[in-house]
Amino acid sequence: MTDTMLETKPEDLIAEMGARARAAAKRLAQMTTEEKAAALRSAAKAMRDSEAEILEANARDLEEAEGRGLSGAMLDRLKLDPKRFAGMIEGVEAIAGLPDPVGQQIDESERPNGLKLSRVRVPIGVIGIIYESRPNVTADAGALCAMAGNAAILRGGSEAKYSNRAILKALRSGLEAAGAPADAVQLVPTQDRAAVGAMLTADGVIDLIVPRGGKSLVARVQTEARVPVLAHLDGINHTYIDGKADPEKAKQLAVNSKMRRTGVCGATETLLIDKAFADPRPVLAALVDAGCELRGGADVQALDSHVLPVTEEDWDTEYLDAILSVKFVDGIDDAIAHIAAHSSGHTEAIVTEDAEAAEKFLNTVDSAIVMWNASTQFADGGEFGLGAEIGISTGRLHARGPVALEGLTTFKWQVRGTGQARP
Amino acid sequence: MTDTMLETKPEDLIAEMGARARAAAKRLAQMTTEEKAAALRSAAKAMRDSEAEILEANARDLEEAEGRGLSGAMLDRLKLDPKRFAGMIEGVEAIAGLPDPVGQQIDESERPNGLKLSRVRVPIGVIGIIYESRPNVTADAGALCAMAGNAAILRGGSEAKYSNRAILKALRSGLEAAGAPADAVQLVPTQDRAAVGAMLTADGVIDLIVPRGGKSLVARVQTEARVPVLAHLDGINHTYIDGKADPEKAKQLAVNSKMRRTGVCGATETLLIDKAFADPRPVLAALVDAGCELRGGADVQALDSHVLPVTEEDWDTEYLDAILSVKFVDGIDDAIAHIAAHSSGHTEAIVTEDAEAAEKFLNTVDSAIVMWNASTQFADGGEFGLGAEIGISTGRLHARGPVALEGLTTFKWQVRGTGQARP
Repeated sequence: MTDTMLETKPEDLIAEMGARARAAAKRLAQMTTEEKAAALRSAAKAMRDSEAEILEANARDLEEAEGRGLSGAMLDRLKLDPKRFAGMIEGVEAIAGLPDPVGQQIDESERPNGLKLSRVRVPIGVIGIIYESRPNVTADAGALCAMAGNAAILRGGSEAKYSNRAILKALRSGLEAAGAPADAVQLVPTQDRAAVGAMLTADGVIDLIVPRGGKSLVARVQTEARVPVLAHLDGINHTYIDGKADPEKAKQLAVNSKMRRTGVCGATETLLIDKAFADPRPVLAALVDAGCELRGGADVQALDSHVLPVTEEDWDTEYLDAILSVKFVDGIDDAIAHIAAHSSGHTEAIVTEDAEAAEKFLNTVDSAIVMWNASTQFADGGEFGLGAEIGISTGRLHARGPVALEGLTTFKWQVRGTGQARP
Repeated sequence: MTDTMLETKPEDLIAEMGARARAAAKRLAQMTTEEKAAALRSAAKAMRDSEAEILEANARDLEEAEGRGLSGAMLDRLKLDPKRFAGMIEGVEAIAGLPDPVGQQIDESERPNGLKLSRVRVPIGVIGIIYESRPNVTADAGALCAMAGNAAILRGGSEAKYSNRAILKALRSGLEAAGAPADAVQLVPTQDRAAVGAMLTADGVIDLIVPRGGKSLVARVQTEARVPVLAHLDGINHTYIDGKADPEKAKQLAVNSKMRRTGVCGATETLLIDKAFADPRPVLAALVDAGCELRGGADVQALDSHVLPVTEEDWDTEYLDAILSVKFVDGIDDAIAHIAAHSSGHTEAIVTEDAEAAEKFLNTVDSAIVMWNASTQFADGGEFGLGAEIGISTGRLHARGPVALEGLTTFKWQVRGTGQARP
């Protein structure tokens, strides 16, 4: 079994897909909210009608993946069982029900010369999504892009190629059945890595690249891209237990922030504890009881025999595992300084009953998401009420934190005059 | 006379300047509006007090430039006479009076679990400005960045180096006198082109690059930059005279859009005239009378003996001169199609008394600025009420059109809880 063999050069392939995407994007940009929603519901129906075909394709992916000895975790991410399949379709239907940012007026003003100005949200255009293993991204990312009026060029991982193609086929036929352009969602038909390179350098063809995958993918994208990138890098997140933290909240939030799911980018990786905090031992014990490996300096080790030695490297490590580095700090300023030196700018939380300290933390810590008395695991588009997310941006421009429909739009200035010439 | 000789490698120089800028940015981010405004007023005062020194430095730049045989236009852009000097200082004082975007709440929501979310504007961080000749950019860009809480690393053109250094010295001393960090504004001390390269690749050190200059500068920046860029490319702008345009408005707006100032990026470069428009001859005659060279096809030439032949290349040319390409089109759809094919996405205008056609144009044309019955020469931050502008963005992300203080900020999510753990 090999990939579709292509005579076309990757640059020509992406240029050609880009031209079709641009034409589709122009049509999508002019569709009403109702038309886009109907198209997504039709796509969801088409996927549901193709359940057998999609699950069969997924079984084929899984079989090949097992044959190549992929890890259990990889196989699990790849697998579409009936429950996950239903979830994927419900996800697309939920996106169809989200408020449409396109056409929203951001602000308006009238100038002394009578010119009326308004900024109105419009789609970005053509968005390239580069992702790995999880086939549900094909439906999810395609639907999010389309609902915001953008055409998507998807490049999934080779391990999910049959699943992706089957999902895409259904998606496109559903869109088309509802009068939307099938080219709203395209899938790069080759697993040639050069196609990724061609996407990353397709300036003017693709308006934005969103990588969804592991560190090596994101790193490659950030190094090679000539097209703007909406990337999330590591989530080296901190929870700081202030001297005036409630002991019970401190314990619960430390455990939840680290252990609810250790593999998500919103998981806490370093716990900072104010030396003025009354008794850290129950916090450490609760983490150990929950199955967490703790790493800390001599002062932390002195409080719990399970604590292993920490190295300098630990403070800059995203474990994505049941491991937590723990450090005692001299109050909030020391905590903020540690975060400034080691955070990846994703999510940080303070646990305290001191509102003044909390506001200082919220205003001073320079991360996409800053929290007070809440688990860092809430860092998620769904939890933020966005309905979905295309990713969590740790970049500083355009969008930060969870990015959903609004982050997939830009704006234009509309100026209405009555014949004004500029003096 | 040579540049400051540096032992330091450009990368090390930019890294070192970047570290000082980052420290300054952290302080600026925590300053109140009043503190920032006072610092800018103090900087304005320090510049005023240094008038003799700055004008002397400018005279030295002019002398060297004349010696190297720079064109009259270049010399004019370089020159600071007392009136321009006063204008530069008034510009800084005006920026000090602008509404501060930092700390503004974009939106807020409360989740069913009681978490309170808000998005709050924060500075971007460290901004690199690369510019040519006009020395007033040193004061203007530095002040805009600082007012939005950002530190600026400036890299001016070699022809203005004495002026820039003198302005910078005064600026920094003024900021410092008011308790603001002098490193809020730094000037790259070498004219070595490798320093520009080091800025463009200083990912993580510089958060945003703003090029202000000619095409070759912007092109270099867009090719080499690893850091996000807020660039404006060409302003290949169109004015479309609809069949239902008022003849008098059509004439006035065509002349003003092209001829008010031909060298600005908001100038119209192509005039599209609906074949249904009653009589284009007075429009063409008024342009010719105003000193404009017209280029058009046989159908346009047939109406006015002054019209020269147009080539395909003309439709993609930003003349920045008293030259206008003119084309007859078959109604608004044809006009929109021509714009889609040839516009640089900067500014386009429709002249019509037909509100429906106007709204179609405003909603369909995919440029940063779209206008109805107004001169494209209004495309300007000051005219839009922004008080100033760092540039006009033709990119699609983060900011479009005139970019002022708000465009020099980003946002973060603040989440306030009462101990919520994620289920």
